[in-house]
Amino acid sequence: MIIVLKREAPPETAQQILDLIASKGLKPLHMPGVERVVLGALGDERVLAELALDSHPMVESLKPILAPYKLVSREMHPHDTVVRFGKTAIGGRGFSVIAGPCAVETRDQMLNTCSAAKKAGAHGIRAGAYKPRTSPYAFQGHGVEGLEILRETGDKLDMPVVTEVMETSDVETVAAYADMLQIGARNMQNFSLLKAVGKCGKPVLLKRGMAARVEDLLLAAEYLLAEGNEQVILCERGIRTFETAMRNTLDLNAIPYIKQKTHLPVLVDPSHGTGIRDLVIPMALAAAACGADGILVEVHENPAVAWSDGAQSLYPEGFERLMEALDPVVKAVGRELR
Amino acid sequence: MIIVLKREAPPETAQQILDLIASKGLKPLHMPGVERVVLGALGDERVLAELALDSHPMVESLKPILAPYKLVSREMHPHDTVVRFGKTAIGGRGFSVIAGPCAVETRDQMLNTCSAAKKAGAHGIRAGAYKPRTSPYAFQGHGVEGLEILRETGDKLDMPVVTEVMETSDVETVAAYADMLQIGARNMQNFSLLKAVGKCGKPVLLKRGMAARVEDLLLAAEYLLAEGNEQVILCERGIRTFETAMRNTLDLNAIPYIKQKTHLPVLVDPSHGTGIRDLVIPMALAAAACGADGILVEVHENPAVAWSDGAQSLYPEGFERLMEALDPVVKAVGRELR
Amino acid sequence: MIIVLKREAPPETAQQILDLIASKGLKPLHMPGVERVVLGALGDERVLAELALDSHPMVESLKPILAPYKLVSREMHPHDTVVRFGKTAIGGRGFSVIAGPCAVETRDQMLNTCSAAKKAGAHGIRAGAYKPRTSPYAFQGHGVEGLEILRETGDKLDMPVVTEVMETSDVETVAAYADMLQIGARNMQNFSLLKAVGKCGKPVLLKRGMAARVEDLLLAAEYLLAEGNEQVILCERGIRTFETAMRNTLDLNAIPYIKQKTHLPVLVDPSHGTGIRDLVIPMALAAAACGADGILVEVHENPAVAWSDGAQSLYPEGFERLMEALDPVVKAVGRELR
Amino acid sequence: MIIVLKREAPPETAQQILDLIASKGLKPLHMPGVERVVLGALGDERVLAELALDSHPMVESLKPILAPYKLVSREMHPHDTVVRFGKTAIGGRGFSVIAGPCAVETRDQMLNTCSAAKKAGAHGIRAGAYKPRTSPYAFQGHGVEGLEILRETGDKLDMPVVTEVMETSDVETVAAYADMLQIGARNMQNFSLLKAVGKCGKPVLLKRGMAARVEDLLLAAEYLLAEGNEQVILCERGIRTFETAMRNTLDLNAIPYIKQKTHLPVLVDPSHGTGIRDLVIPMALAAAACGADGILVEVHENPAVAWSDGAQSLYPEGFERLMEALDPVVKAVGRELR
Repeated sequence: MIIVLKREAPPETAQQILDLIASKGLKPLHMPGVERVVLGALGDERVLAELALDSHPMVESLKPILAPYKLVSREMHPHDTVVRFGKTAIGGRGFSVIAGPCAVETRDQMLNTCSAAKKAGAHGIRAGAYKPRTSPYAFQGHGVEGLEILRETGDKLDMPVVTEVMETSDVETVAAYADMLQIGARNMQNFSLLKAVGKCGKPVLLKRGMAARVEDLLLAAEYLLAEGNEQVILCERGIRTFETAMRNTLDLNAIPYIKQKTHLPVLVDPSHGTGIRDLVIPMALAAAACGADGILVEVHENPAVAWSDGAQSLYPEGFERLMEALDPVVKAVGRELR
Repeated sequence: MIIVLKREAPPETAQQILDLIASKGLKPLHMPGVERVVLGALGDERVLAELALDSHPMVESLKPILAPYKLVSREMHPHDTVVRFGKTAIGGRGFSVIAGPCAVETRDQMLNTCSAAKKAGAHGIRAGAYKPRTSPYAFQGHGVEGLEILRETGDKLDMPVVTEVMETSDVETVAAYADMLQIGARNMQNFSLLKAVGKCGKPVLLKRGMAARVEDLLLAAEYLLAEGNEQVILCERGIRTFETAMRNTLDLNAIPYIKQKTHLPVLVDPSHGTGIRDLVIPMALAAAACGADGILVEVHENPAVAWSDGAQSLYPEGFERLMEALDPVVKAVGRELR
Repeated sequence: MIIVLKREAPPETAQQILDLIASKGLKPLHMPGVERVVLGALGDERVLAELALDSHPMVESLKPILAPYKLVSREMHPHDTVVRFGKTAIGGRGFSVIAGPCAVETRDQMLNTCSAAKKAGAHGIRAGAYKPRTSPYAFQGHGVEGLEILRETGDKLDMPVVTEVMETSDVETVAAYADMLQIGARNMQNFSLLKAVGKCGKPVLLKRGMAARVEDLLLAAEYLLAEGNEQVILCERGIRTFETAMRNTLDLNAIPYIKQKTHLPVLVDPSHGTGIRDLVIPMALAAAACGADGILVEVHENPAVAWSDGAQSLYPEGFERLMEALDPVVKAVGRELR
Repeated sequence: MIIVLKREAPPETAQQILDLIASKGLKPLHMPGVERVVLGALGDERVLAELALDSHPMVESLKPILAPYKLVSREMHPHDTVVRFGKTAIGGRGFSVIAGPCAVETRDQMLNTCSAAKKAGAHGIRAGAYKPRTSPYAFQGHGVEGLEILRETGDKLDMPVVTEVMETSDVETVAAYADMLQIGARNMQNFSLLKAVGKCGKPVLLKRGMAARVEDLLLAAEYLLAEGNEQVILCERGIRTFETAMRNTLDLNAIPYIKQKTHLPVLVDPSHGTGIRDLVIPMALAAAACGADGILVEVHENPAVAWSDGAQSLYPEGFERLMEALDPVVKAVGRELR
């Protein structure tokens, strides 16, 4: 940690802070310059958080040297984590495609949509039983009944299923039905939920919040790992920017950056990341090209009558075209669909 | 609702959508132009949500005519709502100041800080017992013990207290101790929590999310009112932008805009809105000048040793200066501190 | 154009605006609803700009039906424009790679860097003689002397060159040396410069501004085409968002969106789009995968001593690896490097 | 400057960089830690820019200790700069109001609008003769003829005038007519224009760009001061964010922050900062409350027929109400309208 003092800081401030640093077992450093005094603390600086040095009225700024996360860091754990998803796995050399409708609507809609997806090559199913909706007047999901239909569909097609959990008290129920639990973008910093899901024993798909920096996402994942769950997948799904032509701005820069910083797999959701059906295929290909471990994509047997997110859902034919287009790109970067 | 069809839309699409509109009891309108066909639906367009017209492959764009919220709208409820807060009230001609530390740390810290705040003129107390923290390694609050200290402090000083609830299963407990429940920025779209708090019978302080448009904030409030709770206060606390000199960008434009659109009171939090102690007083004055109904401000008996948010907390002397500076500005806009 | 009146608008307002619309030769439409009166104007709504209807105190909002640009629109000009660049061309089925250092530093630096780039397969050279720098104390470019070295390098290696022009009075000079003129991100809305460059007779590379929506970029290009220049290439180079881990957020969503809206070719600049050397290759591949017509990439014979942008410049070996990795991805999407 | 090396950096890298630092006359510091080696450079670190240390492949990150600007810094020049504007002055204890239409349209429009503004208490006139417009089909201003009308209006009413210059070759002409030159938001980083205006001998009003951090604005001002012009006023006019309810997000946080960092006066433009007439008065009051030195506000004799920006222009009656509302707020913060 580097600590820059304010120009007007008296000499005793420097000494006082150096003593505090030493008291925490770190090596203090004193670097008096002409215009500012700079202090340093060498060692595991995470223990300095308790000192709240940024609160000190004579401290101008702090620069941490180490990342604030540990368990998710590639420095601590250099090898790629592979996360099980039913009988399949995500991470490593494979590229996984998880497809399905925004929401579980009916038994038929699920079976028709997901069997088409399976036929085209999807590896797993996504669909929501609990739907976070901006308006209280929009369809909020079928709840437990939706979970039942989802599980039934997965079993019938022999495909693993992932679905969102929005509420701590639902974690156990959702975990009983799903192969993987999703924490949605709006709940990325719902820390109570993170702790509960971290303890549930199932793999987790953690979506990046709309205003979350990559570092915030990694710290949210750190909550999950701190509860003992290492089966965590990250997911980029677009951030909120000034651009209004698309629903979100898909931040693909984040993919190679995340792969460098953490050992966890990372997926891309080009459906929410764009909000526009015609952009889903090109952005799925881009995700594969820049190093994502797979995609999460919305498909519906008939998007024109979908109860939610129809504008960004692929038709089954579109999904087939996506899978055909993906294959050569995935191979071009030395991986394979699986 | 105005519906613009794609250039390539065949004539039967227009007829099909007009029939759908009529089937929902709205008046359909057909406006064929040279380059595009435009359709209209006159009436309570919120029922059109079910049609999911944005999913239709031949629809280019939609323009709603009415706001998506109803109960929070000033159109439905022209008079200002006044929200009770213990023996005091927020909204109307008064300007309220709610002050206190970021977190309940100790009995002494609470009593020293809040009695100083009361002496300087604060009307209520804020302090957290459950703290949403970006890092799992940061202080997470004392929980129920913190609630007890908070209540005790409020009773001793005869001041109402507001505190954050982060979790549906804690709503009843927090409601037992606090005069008002706060929903934090990170939980603004935690819809399970909104529903639970909407039912709890206590007034609510709803903070704007870091990536939330004003319309999203109003829709989140609509969740609370839809559960039967009209005692809702909104709070602007800064949004996330590209500017890194401050912790957040305080969006004061939102204050007069919100006052125009809704009957609910709105507070400003200049502490989180800036993240920098020296900016708190000027931004509190600006909040008063542009029409806020009060402020929520962090004070600590000694910010240099605060367990969280010390960098943005006022010293008791700073808070005194704030109250002295506020008084003439509040009067200049025809209101009074109370 | 759809015009929504305020709730309190008197009936005569509607009539007055309908008359104005008719006076401009458009077909007026009257749609009185229960809560709002909605008006329509059918025809070439761009002439309505003169009416400044958004200024009317009784107008609540406007919705244009048509895009505000014409000449750049694919609706007017369905076939892809191919832009000449020296003896090569950009657009169509090819994928072009333009490489070079941020700035022209010395004759040797240029020759060493660009001959390495050519050997690895680059199709053209980029390098700046006039450098827009945030700080007045940073290197501002060699000016005309830099243009001379650039031209000389291009001629020696038989490669076309593109370079930035920052100033109307320099347009003629730069056009005398370069095969294509670049308008930088900071000047995207320098309308005087756009007009001057639009008249200069040379192809233009127009970079997206850091706060520019795609629509703003297309309108800036419209300035160029309105001066009679159709040889225009767009370039995505990252926008400014709250994410601070990278220099910019590369908005690849924009690529397929732009290809849909306009006939002009579009390049991606992964160097400025990330600001981090290690992210350049994956993002270049992503650009190819999502439909870009080529990339603009910074290479330097020795980035560790580059006078500017070294942190995002590839080493010659890195550029070789990029070209090797690009080839299969470009082929996977049915195109070829050329 | 603090330099953090990558974990894998070999010992000789540290030595090599320490030697470079010493070669520039700064004092080098070596701080080897367990996980990273940290280096320091004490002294005037601006000379280190030439070393381009961020380009070094073994450098993980840099932390400057000093601000990158000098001449605009309050550290170098603690007293407030007062800028002359015709016979009046901006800065110090006064609060200035500069009012007028977006564009010079006609002699009558100017005289009617500005005499109403003067009667209500405005201190100076703003109006554009050269208009930067997003669309090439929008009104671009009357040019020199507009300057003539502007000067004539100023002389007739004995009020100083400020107007935008968009082009280096127009600087001399505009300087011949105006008392102050404005550099617009879109040209804030048009460095050629900054240099030309810095040399012209007239006071300058520099508006913040839509994607500019405060530090970028201060560096743009540094360009002006570096050319010998200290008569510079900054202007906050809103930044671009995800919020779409208003045209821009007025960043009032920037006002007290800027006043702390620089000695230059700062104005607020609530017209562009909101884009909505009804928000102009409250935001003008907020600007006064948080420490701005004045406002720049759009007024039009009849906004409903304004050729540009009518939606955000005040009616003369609105401007009167603004001046009446401003007076007590300005006094409440210890200043006076003048």
